[in-house]
Amino acid sequence: MADGLKVVVIGGGSSYTPELIEGFIRFHHELPVRELWLVDIEAGLHKLEIVGNLAKRMVERSGLPIEIHLTTDRRLAIKDADYVSTQMRVGMLEARGRDESIPLKYGVIGQETTGPGGMMKALRTIPVLLDICRDIEELAPNAWLLNFTNPAGIVTEAIHRHSNVRSVGLCNSPIGLRKWLTNAYEVESERIYTEFVGLNHLHWVTRIDIDGEPKLPQLLGDTEGFSAKNVPSKGWDPAFLRSLGALPSYYLKYFYMTDEMLKEQQESFAREGNRAAVVKRVEEELFKLYSDPDLSEKPKQLEQRGGAFYSEAAVNLMRSLHNGTNDIQTLNVANNGIFDFLPKEASIEVNCVVTKTGPLPLPLTNVPTHVKGLIHAVKTYEQLTIEAAVTGDRGIALQAMVHHPLVPNVDIAVKLLGEMLEANRDYLPQFFPQG
Amino acid sequence: MADGLKVVVIGGGSSYTPELIEGFIRFHHELPVRELWLVDIEAGLHKLEIVGNLAKRMVERSGLPIEIHLTTDRRLAIKDADYVSTQMRVGMLEARGRDESIPLKYGVIGQETTGPGGMMKALRTIPVLLDICRDIEELAPNAWLLNFTNPAGIVTEAIHRHSNVRSVGLCNSPIGLRKWLTNAYEVESERIYTEFVGLNHLHWVTRIDIDGEPKLPQLLGDTEGFSAKNVPSKGWDPAFLRSLGALPSYYLKYFYMTDEMLKEQQESFAREGNRAAVVKRVEEELFKLYSDPDLSEKPKQLEQRGGAFYSEAAVNLMRSLHNGTNDIQTLNVANNGIFDFLPKEASIEVNCVVTKTGPLPLPLTNVPTHVKGLIHAVKTYEQLTIEAAVTGDRGIALQAMVHHPLVPNVDIAVKLLGEMLEANRDYLPQFFPQG
Amino acid sequence: MADGLKVVVIGGGSSYTPELIEGFIRFHHELPVRELWLVDIEAGLHKLEIVGNLAKRMVERSGLPIEIHLTTDRRLAIKDADYVSTQMRVGMLEARGRDESIPLKYGVIGQETTGPGGMMKALRTIPVLLDICRDIEELAPNAWLLNFTNPAGIVTEAIHRHSNVRSVGLCNSPIGLRKWLTNAYEVESERIYTEFVGLNHLHWVTRIDIDGEPKLPQLLGDTEGFSAKNVPSKGWDPAFLRSLGALPSYYLKYFYMTDEMLKEQQESFAREGNRAAVVKRVEEELFKLYSDPDLSEKPKQLEQRGGAFYSEAAVNLMRSLHNGTNDIQTLNVANNGIFDFLPKEASIEVNCVVTKTGPLPLPLTNVPTHVKGLIHAVKTYEQLTIEAAVTGDRGIALQAMVHHPLVPNVDIAVKLLGEMLEANRDYLPQFFPQG
Amino acid sequence: MADGLKVVVIGGGSSYTPELIEGFIRFHHELPVRELWLVDIEAGLHKLEIVGNLAKRMVERSGLPIEIHLTTDRRLAIKDADYVSTQMRVGMLEARGRDESIPLKYGVIGQETTGPGGMMKALRTIPVLLDICRDIEELAPNAWLLNFTNPAGIVTEAIHRHSNVRSVGLCNSPIGLRKWLTNAYEVESERIYTEFVGLNHLHWVTRIDIDGEPKLPQLLGDTEGFSAKNVPSKGWDPAFLRSLGALPSYYLKYFYMTDEMLKEQQESFAREGNRAAVVKRVEEELFKLYSDPDLSEKPKQLEQRGGAFYSEAAVNLMRSLHNGTNDIQTLNVANNGIFDFLPKEASIEVNCVVTKTGPLPLPLTNVPTHVKGLIHAVKTYEQLTIEAAVTGDRGIALQAMVHHPLVPNVDIAVKLLGEMLEANRDYLPQFFPQG
Repeated sequence: MADGLKVVVIGGGSSYTPELIEGFIRFHHELPVRELWLVDIEAGLHKLEIVGNLAKRMVERSGLPIEIHLTTDRRLAIKDADYVSTQMRVGMLEARGRDESIPLKYGVIGQETTGPGGMMKALRTIPVLLDICRDIEELAPNAWLLNFTNPAGIVTEAIHRHSNVRSVGLCNSPIGLRKWLTNAYEVESERIYTEFVGLNHLHWVTRIDIDGEPKLPQLLGDTEGFSAKNVPSKGWDPAFLRSLGALPSYYLKYFYMTDEMLKEQQESFAREGNRAAVVKRVEEELFKLYSDPDLSEKPKQLEQRGGAFYSEAAVNLMRSLHNGTNDIQTLNVANNGIFDFLPKEASIEVNCVVTKTGPLPLPLTNVPTHVKGLIHAVKTYEQLTIEAAVTGDRGIALQAMVHHPLVPNVDIAVKLLGEMLEANRDYLPQFFPQG
Repeated sequence: MADGLKVVVIGGGSSYTPELIEGFIRFHHELPVRELWLVDIEAGLHKLEIVGNLAKRMVERSGLPIEIHLTTDRRLAIKDADYVSTQMRVGMLEARGRDESIPLKYGVIGQETTGPGGMMKALRTIPVLLDICRDIEELAPNAWLLNFTNPAGIVTEAIHRHSNVRSVGLCNSPIGLRKWLTNAYEVESERIYTEFVGLNHLHWVTRIDIDGEPKLPQLLGDTEGFSAKNVPSKGWDPAFLRSLGALPSYYLKYFYMTDEMLKEQQESFAREGNRAAVVKRVEEELFKLYSDPDLSEKPKQLEQRGGAFYSEAAVNLMRSLHNGTNDIQTLNVANNGIFDFLPKEASIEVNCVVTKTGPLPLPLTNVPTHVKGLIHAVKTYEQLTIEAAVTGDRGIALQAMVHHPLVPNVDIAVKLLGEMLEANRDYLPQFFPQG
Repeated sequence: MADGLKVVVIGGGSSYTPELIEGFIRFHHELPVRELWLVDIEAGLHKLEIVGNLAKRMVERSGLPIEIHLTTDRRLAIKDADYVSTQMRVGMLEARGRDESIPLKYGVIGQETTGPGGMMKALRTIPVLLDICRDIEELAPNAWLLNFTNPAGIVTEAIHRHSNVRSVGLCNSPIGLRKWLTNAYEVESERIYTEFVGLNHLHWVTRIDIDGEPKLPQLLGDTEGFSAKNVPSKGWDPAFLRSLGALPSYYLKYFYMTDEMLKEQQESFAREGNRAAVVKRVEEELFKLYSDPDLSEKPKQLEQRGGAFYSEAAVNLMRSLHNGTNDIQTLNVANNGIFDFLPKEASIEVNCVVTKTGPLPLPLTNVPTHVKGLIHAVKTYEQLTIEAAVTGDRGIALQAMVHHPLVPNVDIAVKLLGEMLEANRDYLPQFFPQG
Repeated sequence: MADGLKVVVIGGGSSYTPELIEGFIRFHHELPVRELWLVDIEAGLHKLEIVGNLAKRMVERSGLPIEIHLTTDRRLAIKDADYVSTQMRVGMLEARGRDESIPLKYGVIGQETTGPGGMMKALRTIPVLLDICRDIEELAPNAWLLNFTNPAGIVTEAIHRHSNVRSVGLCNSPIGLRKWLTNAYEVESERIYTEFVGLNHLHWVTRIDIDGEPKLPQLLGDTEGFSAKNVPSKGWDPAFLRSLGALPSYYLKYFYMTDEMLKEQQESFAREGNRAAVVKRVEEELFKLYSDPDLSEKPKQLEQRGGAFYSEAAVNLMRSLHNGTNDIQTLNVANNGIFDFLPKEASIEVNCVVTKTGPLPLPLTNVPTHVKGLIHAVKTYEQLTIEAAVTGDRGIALQAMVHHPLVPNVDIAVKLLGEMLEANRDYLPQFFPQG
């Protein structure tokens, strides 16, 4: 660390990587990255090289002393790392496509992080990520693991429960809301205090203060302007929002406007296939751009890809951990009593002070009674999913799916689980042992 | 109390009352009732007289020194009472009919205790019951209130939260399971230990021991024999039951087999109207029987009415409170830490030791993770319902309905709430103040 | 178990054993003991034979089919046992003498269960008892361990934390209070409800109801009659008792009347040596009596020995576990949320319902604020003592002693710990490893 | 607030006030004080004028637009205030003298914040402070109350429990430790992270990181350099500190080194009277200095007075509340689950992030088991003291004193309480009602 940091990106061949590179360049004076290792699996080598070469051109142009390493040797990369970030997709976009399509056949929301789709993604991902943790425990025990891999909340809790790695889960959704507020109110972000209450992709904003003045009540009366790109943005019922007394995240539409969202998904699927197919086309275009040997900066088109603030979230967190800035970020951490109705180990998404020795969650000043049951119901599903992922127990997997609020009944759960496990057979060795 | 107890039955004109009388007669040596006051409202006076006269004939035949009083003067009845029991139906069977019918129009379960129907029943009942509590606080501060009025769990919690009356909620469902086990295994009931986990009409049995030997695993493999009269008894999915590791109560079919139950309700409604209409016909027949001046015992037909063990539950509880028998009964009491994820005041339905100074809940030895979220989700709805009943706040009522697991989305909740409140206008002065 | 139970008494050569035998004889119809194994160590063989032969004569006289086995082979005895009871004294009365004498030199209470003396007893005993647990886990995994060995609360918690054996801690003190009440009020014990709040040898009685009528307030005004034989009985300050609102156990005099108790101990020590010496003389006389081949019943003199109700406590508990009587007994069990300020694993002494599958602690209806701090302070010492006993860590032992409320300061703690550990060197291999 | 803040200092005639003035001048760019109201009682008017005139000269010299108001009209001062700070001494130094002297007669620590002395101070102060809160609730409901009045923890909890005023308790002790570390390690204070665990005047430092590197273990090996001016600084036992694993605050010497501290107090008392007498002489000299019309800055001698960092603590907190800086300060706030064994309302002294809408306590990363009991024991005393102060109930006051760890037994507690209440009769109307 004497002469700079070693940072590892697992899933380095992702189309998001140029975002990260841009961040590392911009904040190099505060986060002195010396080596950046982009790691991917054999099947992703081609993309890794394209995006890796773009990264090298970007660094070269910056004139900064950052070394870019491209490798499929994960252990070599992890050795003595200071920060490891993950942005993986086990099963790639094909698996995502199945996560999105199969539930629709049963009249169930098909989404890659919420509902049965997210559950499958968790079952595929957790064992792989715990393998990575084993490597970090051995080769870089002091490293911080920044987990962007979705479903980020579940995956982060799996790491807390089954590994000693120091780990934080990240999502760009809170940062997105703050950006939106910054623009809408034309203030610097330090003047805004937003309180996030809940879990990853299941949070409510229960306080928005600007210069200490509460702005949420007014905002709940005018919801027109609020939307986001990668999630449908149908309007909320105003009477509902007012009595809710909180701003629900985009993902809560799956729970509160289930029928509308399902209909929209079904229409969209009929029109252009699942979202995975759309993303695939976007990615192909991005990689075409990245391949241009004259390109040495992040192309504008990447921003439309949806993960706008991932880079900012990651670089912010590393910077604050590195410098002990004690600033407030919204992160996925262990509950430890913040919600008195959830287990201590439950991952939650709340405001944290980022100290040098890790994020400390801030107590919540307003947890509406209304939302406690839903938080607990989803957390129950999440815990069961983690247990199923680790044990390969079909009974537990069934209980997870039955008790997910978006799965309408046991009968559908049984059938849906059967088909989805089968469809993911190649990525679920814990459920389909060899021999 | 020196020469016997004063017992008051609010809603004494109910068709169930002969059950109670029979119990008081049978256990008079242990529960020396001196005066039994049957109270009803003006509109129920005719039925009160029919059932009251039957009661008098039953007592006369027994030769016991029990005085039967019939009155519409509630305060006179309550004065210095030892036990007050309630079995009311605010709005009578007509209101129940609406509770059952209106949700069906929106594709939502229509049931008098679970879901939007139960919510309306709670909104109608809580203010009336709290009025009764005011009378008890003033006129019989040491009395025990035994609440059979449904939704018993919600109503009991409302009393705990908004009154100082010593109160317990009762349901015949746990006693029914124990009866079933007693028959099925041919043992005396003392040799059976069953652990109930959950809320009223939302419980799971997580332990059944006979002579200390665990019998539940075997029972979960053979669910054929298990059913009940007043709730549809479609079979459970065996794989689901096995991994659940607990026996769900009949009412959980509304949550776990929602589509099947809805379909059954819709078919039944098309065939013979709502359940309220069926019950009405049965009641009319019962009262015809009760009017027979030669009848001086509980007629057999009453048992088919559905509330088989209400009498037993009520007399058992009074008997144990009176004698301090320290036996174990399954009751609705304040949580006080039994479930570490629910508020202290939450009413829960669990095993209690009935001491002379009240029931003490026993710690639970097995609370499956699977069911915590659902318990919390329903308790959230219950708390909001109580708050709405007491305040008449439509926003809170909307949140209650939105967050009920059986209500599919905000849009339906808004419409359903609007129609149901309107349909109950006469019984909801808190929502429709005069002026 | 088909033809009766196998019961093992570790420390069977104790002078208390005839009490137990008498109990097994009296309640044989409810607790069908087939084999009773009295186990002791080589050094206690002589006493074991004396008391064992008396036991045989007592059984013979009763005509019951109970086999008495005397052995030093613990594993042979434990094999397939149904109940194991322990009443050990590691280091025998000589060690007790040191536990009582050394603290007095430093102006600190010298007592065999409370304070530094009790700590030393715990350090000597816990490893031995955990060895016994290893045997039970292996040879009789379904057996219940009834632990009478003092300090019973600490030792029971050590077993809960470091073994899987099903275990309960017992003390005769609560049964003694109930006996006293039974006599004083001339009622049967079923008509009395007493609520015990606290830890072993550190409890308060916060409710005494007779026939449901509260009797405690009156009793707190008249404390003359209340005393016990084996603990000094100086009177409590009446104003203190009234505002305490609870009856403190005898052992609380060490905390509330420290100076008086210390002075009394010092005077008694000057007069007749430590209590161990007194007990030794009593025991010698008892064993002389026991040796009489014509004696075939429990001699009256045993009752003056002090452990009056041990037998009753043990037989009661075995009987209720065996028959699942669901009666209420005051036992040492894991906290599990009964005290919301103590860890779940903390052993506490409270009322329990004894079900066939073990005791379930009843919730407390009245925990005075005043006593929470003292309970927590003593529990802190207990936890540290267990940790020190298991690890042999002197630093933890020092923290335990420093934080005991009866140890006045760090300086004394350092010196006292040093001298007491050294004096117990032969029985503390964890602190004085060989080599 | 548009053109600056209104700040009120209750007890403005204190000798500490020039410290505050200096702070307001130095940080005026960040904390734009427009009006500063120094309030005192009639009996303190002379001192108020002396210190107030010095304040005016200091402001004049600074050239800043701060108006100084001197008044005995508390309500006029509080009207529309932004910040109210209190630094009162009900009964003045004479009462402190008694707090310090009387316990010594009984062989008990005599100290103005810890033990029976602190208890009396709390009984005198709480009713007065709650009166001030009534004024703030009425006249300046949005004001923040910064409470420096000792015993700050108890007083702050009394305000939380019995008033709606937004209030924080402050102490200069944590800031003192950080200053000491800053000097000792020659680093800027932002590079230091210290975790404070406990209550006001009863805290342990369980983490000291400099640049993220743990420094505490090393510090616990070398305790020579650590001392403070206004509390005796006898050395800690090194073996004790090492196994404690935490740095105890100065005030913990009263608990851990009771005999030594008592002896020192007794010797000091014999030599120069109680500490109150010493302080009185220092104050007289200070006021002589303050009276010099040529003095227009804080005199050096004030620093020796002992309250070195009070000003810094107060100005820091106002500044952070005003600007929402989200920095970390060690403050007295409501527990709200930070310690899972204390009530939610308990005041605790821990690190907080100071947001614009108030301080949010940070979760603790290391709470040693050893100290939980002592924290709970002292908090028990504190709660009882608050209850006694509000009700004037002697029985509760007796329980408070009996259960204070520094009071050796009930007998002394009874006598000490009697004498101390009597000695404070003029300031305890709740215990000595007129008539």
